[in-house]
Amino acid sequence: MKPKISLITLGVKDLEKSLEFYRDGLGFETHEYNEGDDHVMFRMEGSWLGLFPLEKLAEGAKVSADKGGFSGIVFAHNVSSQEDVDKVFQLAINAGAKKLKNPEKVFWGGYESHFADPDGYVWAITHNPFTDLS
Amino acid sequence: MKPKISLITLGVKDLEKSLEFYRDGLGFETHEYNEGDDHVMFRMEGSWLGLFPLEKLAEGAKVSADKGGFSGIVFAHNVSSQEDVDKVFQLAINAGAKKLKNPEKVFWGGYESHFADPDGYVWAITHNPFTDLS
Repeated sequence: MKPKISLITLGVKDLEKSLEFYRDGLGFETHEYNEGDDHVMFRMEGSWLGLFPLEKLAEGAKVSADKGGFSGIVFAHNVSSQEDVDKVFQLAINAGAKKLKNPEKVFWGGYESHFADPDGYVWAITHNPFTDLS
Repeated sequence: MKPKISLITLGVKDLEKSLEFYRDGLGFETHEYNEGDDHVMFRMEGSWLGLFPLEKLAEGAKVSADKGGFSGIVFAHNVSSQEDVDKVFQLAINAGAKKLKNPEKVFWGGYESHFADPDGYVWAITHNPFTDLS
């Protein structure tokens, strides 16, 4: 098995709202999306990102659509400086993200902030001075 | 904001068990991991994958560690043929994954199967004949 996540699909409650957040708010470009489609794909650097109605995603995976508050997963978007953490975090907040943690120095030596998307999925905006993943 | 997820971190209940599943079972190579470290990183093609104790991950993001059954997220590992879906799915099952859906043709024209990792995180092994993400 090749070490690769090809596509990360988020099960969302309101596709239009999530589309607006990621496309118009964060500025991600959709891949072959047509108005009214029941799913959205964003061609990203690294793993692609998809949006799909939560119930349908659960149905496809044969799991219950019952979802707790925290997914248990954090998506880190790494940038190359502390200033960029501040900037990107502000962009997300302006786009309607829920603020979870303002940018700050963290115990492992990095600098990061956290926000939640419209469905509560957690993102970290991170500057890691030791390993450059930006 | 660059369209990129640098690192996907899974909050796990038993780091050792998850490490065994992903490293020894699926065959992913760890990045600078030393026995006893409290986190694990896998350098993947595309977004990297990390493992971190669930409580600490939640604490860092200032969210409750209370987690429902389904994260709401599916990680797709795409391969280039139906045969490879069967093979990789079997590899995961042999590694101790929980079978969710046997490989089958699905409504959108692809062929896929689903399994859950030790914490219930859902993976799809997918052949998509229209868009090659393998």
